[in-house]
Amino acid sequence: MIKSRLAALRRLLKKQGLDALLVTLPANRRYLSGFTPDDGQWGESSGALLICQTAALLLTDFRYELTARAQAPYLETIVYTQGLAPLLRVIAPELGLKNLAYESEAMLDNWRLRLEKSLPGVELKPTLGLVSKLRVKKNSAEIRALAASLALMEKVLDQTLAGELIGRREREVALSIARAVEDAGAEGVSFPPTVASGPNGAEPHAESGERVIERGDVIVFDVGAKLNGYCSDISRTVVAGGLEAADERFAKVYGTTLAAKNRAYQEIMPHMTGGEADGIARQVIDQAGFGARFGHSLGHGVGLQTHEEPHVGPRSEEVLEPGMVFTIEPGIYLPGWGGVRLEDMVLLTEEGCMRLGKLDRFYDLP
Amino acid sequence: MIKSRLAALRRLLKKQGLDALLVTLPANRRYLSGFTPDDGQWGESSGALLICQTAALLLTDFRYELTARAQAPYLETIVYTQGLAPLLRVIAPELGLKNLAYESEAMLDNWRLRLEKSLPGVELKPTLGLVSKLRVKKNSAEIRALAASLALMEKVLDQTLAGELIGRREREVALSIARAVEDAGAEGVSFPPTVASGPNGAEPHAESGERVIERGDVIVFDVGAKLNGYCSDISRTVVAGGLEAADERFAKVYGTTLAAKNRAYQEIMPHMTGGEADGIARQVIDQAGFGARFGHSLGHGVGLQTHEEPHVGPRSEEVLEPGMVFTIEPGIYLPGWGGVRLEDMVLLTEEGCMRLGKLDRFYDLP
Repeated sequence: MIKSRLAALRRLLKKQGLDALLVTLPANRRYLSGFTPDDGQWGESSGALLICQTAALLLTDFRYELTARAQAPYLETIVYTQGLAPLLRVIAPELGLKNLAYESEAMLDNWRLRLEKSLPGVELKPTLGLVSKLRVKKNSAEIRALAASLALMEKVLDQTLAGELIGRREREVALSIARAVEDAGAEGVSFPPTVASGPNGAEPHAESGERVIERGDVIVFDVGAKLNGYCSDISRTVVAGGLEAADERFAKVYGTTLAAKNRAYQEIMPHMTGGEADGIARQVIDQAGFGARFGHSLGHGVGLQTHEEPHVGPRSEEVLEPGMVFTIEPGIYLPGWGGVRLEDMVLLTEEGCMRLGKLDRFYDLP
Repeated sequence: MIKSRLAALRRLLKKQGLDALLVTLPANRRYLSGFTPDDGQWGESSGALLICQTAALLLTDFRYELTARAQAPYLETIVYTQGLAPLLRVIAPELGLKNLAYESEAMLDNWRLRLEKSLPGVELKPTLGLVSKLRVKKNSAEIRALAASLALMEKVLDQTLAGELIGRREREVALSIARAVEDAGAEGVSFPPTVASGPNGAEPHAESGERVIERGDVIVFDVGAKLNGYCSDISRTVVAGGLEAADERFAKVYGTTLAAKNRAYQEIMPHMTGGEADGIARQVIDQAGFGARFGHSLGHGVGLQTHEEPHVGPRSEEVLEPGMVFTIEPGIYLPGWGGVRLEDMVLLTEEGCMRLGKLDRFYDLP
């Protein structure tokens, strides 16, 4: 698998006239080597891959040496002591590199400036989404891994929603979800769980806080797990105390969101752009008069990262193709009242969308 | 507090001929505004501050609007819908900006390229550590916050070390530490806890794994909490089953590390460089013949970030000054055998180092 991924990348580099690529995005590093450390930002880095036509190197420091050699047997591990830039200064002429591509989306400006100084004879070339392009279509092993991550997450969410919510603090509910995800064998959550109750639900990325959930609260759950490196991402919205505790506004907001999700699920087809896909759900919400209150994109790809390509939003010209996995997550947010968001992960096939999960927990509104 | 910090930054900008600074590093954003969201990398950002002589703006998107207005009352919150770069395109001429400084250590290359396109008449200027410089000396409220974060962490570590370790998996011990930190009221751990037993201890940043701890294992603990935004960071090394279970090698490795730590604690004085401070401990380890096995720096600053200025390493020319808080953490790592690391957080005063914590748990070797 690593071999064919490296081969695909090498073809891409050749086509674009790039002598080598420095891979620093942790998810890309993992995809191309098996090396798992994920330190998020390159500033405190665990290293980089250097891939060219004749070599595949994992450059890291001594803290990660054992991990690197064990996890990435197809690559040659080189340990640097003075830092990455001084090592590249030695390696670049040995490999005869005239240019060196880097990942613009994962390269900090001060690292780029340092590389520029260290590699006077080498042209640095920014690239955007080069490895992401390879990652955007999932193979069957990856689809199984994503489905397994989602199944684990759905089980935890299902149990949470089956229990009593009234009287609990948002933060405590979020924490218990995170722990159940760990106990179920995942590496952990793929992002901090959102549990946003009542008016807090109006802020889609609210931090789960000290608010105590009351009967009648509309609660947005947005949760994800990371299992064997693969992420899941799902949202459900419920009323504390059940549908009979909801206020008069809930049915229209919820019903519109659900209709938008279902319409998108049924009508998104391969070869549409992300913008066209987004428009399907957006139109439903617009027509119900909530257009201005759906302030985010319909969805995003999910894989080794929670948010990756394809982007499924109003301005996206990315073409959706079979094998892609992304979320469908329309939402409506009313300041002072709260919000509703419903999110599923789907696999796009030649015939259209296929849900990766099984959790229903949708209200059947009259 | 926010006001005087903004004033200090404005003086710095004026002195350097910078019209405005775009603040994107989450810890710097928080320091200058109170806005707490921390999304690590700027790619999935919760926004930026724009500070100039006449304005202090918090630019964010609608997901964070309520949080921004509540947490950052001294700044003017502006919500963008098209993204940060298009908003800056409108704001920059209104503020009359001829140049715009940005944080090179927190700016992703593709964001810089986007800003360059959006702001054709504005010169973008990379800066490095501008706000970090303001943050490096802690005021008394910050020192109390750091001590509180460390006290919480020490209590959890103390309880863990008092309990039985033999027979437990590293990962499970690490998880229980993380949970105890959350239960004690912290936001969470400031970095994933390291519990590295036996040969795993030879890799200073080993991921806590599936290894089951055995009697006689040397175990490196490196743990930290984040409480009210402030981080702690402490390491202790113990032998499972106690000192009598240790092998013949342990005493020399441990004793050398402890001597190095103590020497550094006693001899580090204000106005030394980070390199000189590092050299004090390194000399002790060198003289014991382990110089090549102490592969990292002696220490680093701790504050709103686990790793921040000052850098206390062999090549550091930063001058250590009273009010700085940093770690002293020598270590010796022997491949195949394991490692020893001992780490305390200290506050530098005019008289020298003062430990911020109280946890001993050091072996008294013959």
